[in-house]
Amino acid sequence: MVSKAVAKYVHALHLKKYRLRHGAFLVEGGKSVRELLSSALLTERLFLTAEFAAKIQPELPSSVPVEVVSEEELTRLGTLTTNNTALAIARLPEEKVLAPAPNQLLLALDQVRDPGNVGTLIRLADWYGLGGVICSDTCADPWAPKTVSATMGSFTRVPVWQRELPTWLSSLPASLPVYGADLHGDNVHRLTLQPTGVLVMGSESHGLTPEVEACLTQRLHIPGRGQAESLNVAVSAAILLDNFYRNVQ
Amino acid sequence: MVSKAVAKYVHALHLKKYRLRHGAFLVEGGKSVRELLSSALLTERLFLTAEFAAKIQPELPSSVPVEVVSEEELTRLGTLTTNNTALAIARLPEEKVLAPAPNQLLLALDQVRDPGNVGTLIRLADWYGLGGVICSDTCADPWAPKTVSATMGSFTRVPVWQRELPTWLSSLPASLPVYGADLHGDNVHRLTLQPTGVLVMGSESHGLTPEVEACLTQRLHIPGRGQAESLNVAVSAAILLDNFYRNVQ
Repeated sequence: MVSKAVAKYVHALHLKKYRLRHGAFLVEGGKSVRELLSSALLTERLFLTAEFAAKIQPELPSSVPVEVVSEEELTRLGTLTTNNTALAIARLPEEKVLAPAPNQLLLALDQVRDPGNVGTLIRLADWYGLGGVICSDTCADPWAPKTVSATMGSFTRVPVWQRELPTWLSSLPASLPVYGADLHGDNVHRLTLQPTGVLVMGSESHGLTPEVEACLTQRLHIPGRGQAESLNVAVSAAILLDNFYRNVQ
Repeated sequence: MVSKAVAKYVHALHLKKYRLRHGAFLVEGGKSVRELLSSALLTERLFLTAEFAAKIQPELPSSVPVEVVSEEELTRLGTLTTNNTALAIARLPEEKVLAPAPNQLLLALDQVRDPGNVGTLIRLADWYGLGGVICSDTCADPWAPKTVSATMGSFTRVPVWQRELPTWLSSLPASLPVYGADLHGDNVHRLTLQPTGVLVMGSESHGLTPEVEACLTQRLHIPGRGQAESLNVAVSAAILLDNFYRNVQ
């Protein structure tokens, strides 16, 4: 049985306000918890079903308190519909210095409100080995349980920052390219893009905010041939990133 | 007030079994319902809030029965957490003949179980103007409310078939290329792909089923540079499709 005080702490971490206050976040599900345990991030506490605890016994660090709980109790602690494996409390990583390095591309997200999309975008940044992901204050919290889950483990590897985006973009050296997706932009199939600078992706429903749009140095367009009005934000980012990295072998 | 019989009919259409039995499906939310009304699909019945009914008055076809309902009633009828606009019952479209045309690419989905992913893939097929999408029997139902919603209106335009996939793939002319994503496949950045044949995408967790894999004529690999093990299925499909269509101007 988890004590009332501990259950209260876990429930508080469902909310951004308390994640920031406590400097901690939740990792749910066996696969994500194993990624956490094999990463450099600090684990504060583990809740495991007996079955899952037996399965990952060799991976359990001796320094982390483990509570063995029932599937019902685990489900009540977390945000998943059902959880028969694991839930961890992890420490929020310390922010690395945010400075775009030469020959490095960063991904910036402008009011991407769906945590599934933010998570998929962090996973994509991990696939292409980007320098990191900068989220506007209006994005879904990168440390929300749904976001963490959608990263499929990439939350342990990709540096993530939260910033007031127009202010940060304005602070960049004028020579640094800032790209954004735009239906009236340049056809990416006709460009030879190099992965340096910042690629900004906007919300699906509202596009880029005007202040962010004003910071772009080049607008990029993905040519389509059908009738769909737009693409999902993670899908667009994937196509654009592939167009950047196809020129680097 | 919606009658009990009508409410029962709408609730039955939450389930695939009854969608097939009645040849009908649900379209939820103002944006999707407007796409439905401006499409060639048949609308059987509309449920609208008074506010939304006033807004789309000029678009309402005189032949379709409309019931004006409260937001609470609309929410109770459908599957969304809240719905303050519209819900429609639409007729399932008649299947077009499924034959790959020359110089046409079809997208086949092998056990893609998440309705959001299936919907995003249908939207992507619409963007690139593919000939249609073939779903294995083990995919999420393309006419489930969540799938329809994720297509963002593309359900009105993209032909969709449900087939036993290995049987269908085996029936294709031997000369037709059948592509699939594979970590050990050919680097797509070094190929000049032409959009003809079939591109098969597998489930994220299990990849392609062996019977489907045996039908591939070429395996394609998206080169990554980071540490993520894999990409979301819609994200992978997007990158591959862009690699097919970048050679067609």
